[in-house]
Amino acid sequence: MNYPEPLEALIQELKKLPGVGQRTAERLAFHLLNQPEEEVELLREALRAIKAEIVLCRECFNFAEARGPDERGALCGICRDPGRDRSVICVVSHPQELWKIEKTGGYPGLYHVLGGLISPLRDVHPEDLHIEELMARLRRGDVREVILALDPTVEGEHTSLYLARQIKPLGILTTRIAQGVPIGRDLEFTDEATLSRALQGRVTL
Amino acid sequence: MNYPEPLEALIQELKKLPGVGQRTAERLAFHLLNQPEEEVELLREALRAIKAEIVLCRECFNFAEARGPDERGALCGICRDPGRDRSVICVVSHPQELWKIEKTGGYPGLYHVLGGLISPLRDVHPEDLHIEELMARLRRGDVREVILALDPTVEGEHTSLYLARQIKPLGILTTRIAQGVPIGRDLEFTDEATLSRALQGRVTL
Repeated sequence: MNYPEPLEALIQELKKLPGVGQRTAERLAFHLLNQPEEEVELLREALRAIKAEIVLCRECFNFAEARGPDERGALCGICRDPGRDRSVICVVSHPQELWKIEKTGGYPGLYHVLGGLISPLRDVHPEDLHIEELMARLRRGDVREVILALDPTVEGEHTSLYLARQIKPLGILTTRIAQGVPIGRDLEFTDEATLSRALQGRVTL
Repeated sequence: MNYPEPLEALIQELKKLPGVGQRTAERLAFHLLNQPEEEVELLREALRAIKAEIVLCRECFNFAEARGPDERGALCGICRDPGRDRSVICVVSHPQELWKIEKTGGYPGLYHVLGGLISPLRDVHPEDLHIEELMARLRRGDVREVILALDPTVEGEHTSLYLARQIKPLGILTTRIAQGVPIGRDLEFTDEATLSRALQGRVTL
């Protein structure tokens, strides 16, 4: 016996989600099947809204609410906030990382979301990312520092070096977030590459 | 800074799912936000279909596909299958458990889904469950055995005893699935209630 076709179809769709296997998909599908139609409708409406009402910010490519027709495109809450320090731009690869940094509560500046990392192996080149738009923002002349907050991986390092080379001629300070041992983890369990980087980056107390 | 409103709304809806906390909901929401609109539409359509196209079987209250208007209601795939043994009915509380038993591949009979368990504490009484419909099926006279496969909990035991008392006057054999130590688990980690039940239910080799 197989599940009724609509149930099986939902299980297949749920299995496409990250971290959701067959068993979790079944559990979620049965749960949704047992919910009143209004509850499922709320989820369907929320799914519709994220695609229909969220666009990329015309300045920094963070997610922004699309409010009414503006021929220049929408601005995200951070770019619209008059209280942000417009002289610093933090560069990240995806909006997820922007929100992680926002949650620290300690960063007062603006952002720029690249939309990925340069990766010749995966056929992602500088022109596929929002690098030209970053350069255009910097050429306007209000920015004194660019903080690169990209993954501490080969692709992240490569992208950081590429950006640093592009920005240097503009005379803007380019920094990278610190790499070292993560807080709260035993040194014993830290990998050699991280430890080696932490030693190189030691600071005077 | 808060997430854009539609993103926050989706996170709140996803958090209603079982086993989904704030972090998982955020991960799923960002994943969905990054999917093309067609992918999100497939999920929305699957959600619509489970509520619009799945009904309860008019015989056993398992999930069934609603196909065209039949004034007597839909029949599930198991009740429609001419190869099933119509002389045995296995009683479960929810369709999930029915599908678990189906997956064992070893049960040839029909089912009856109660829709819950009798629970005076939670204000669930016999008339709130599909018990009268079960009795009507049994009175038709084709059934020789009813297998009770309810949770091994106070509510499950109570419901089993209630059903056994109702069925006895009809002269139909009423059995309950075996309770004992689960397969593949060390005896050392089996709780006392289970072990005690396993001892009582010992069988001759």
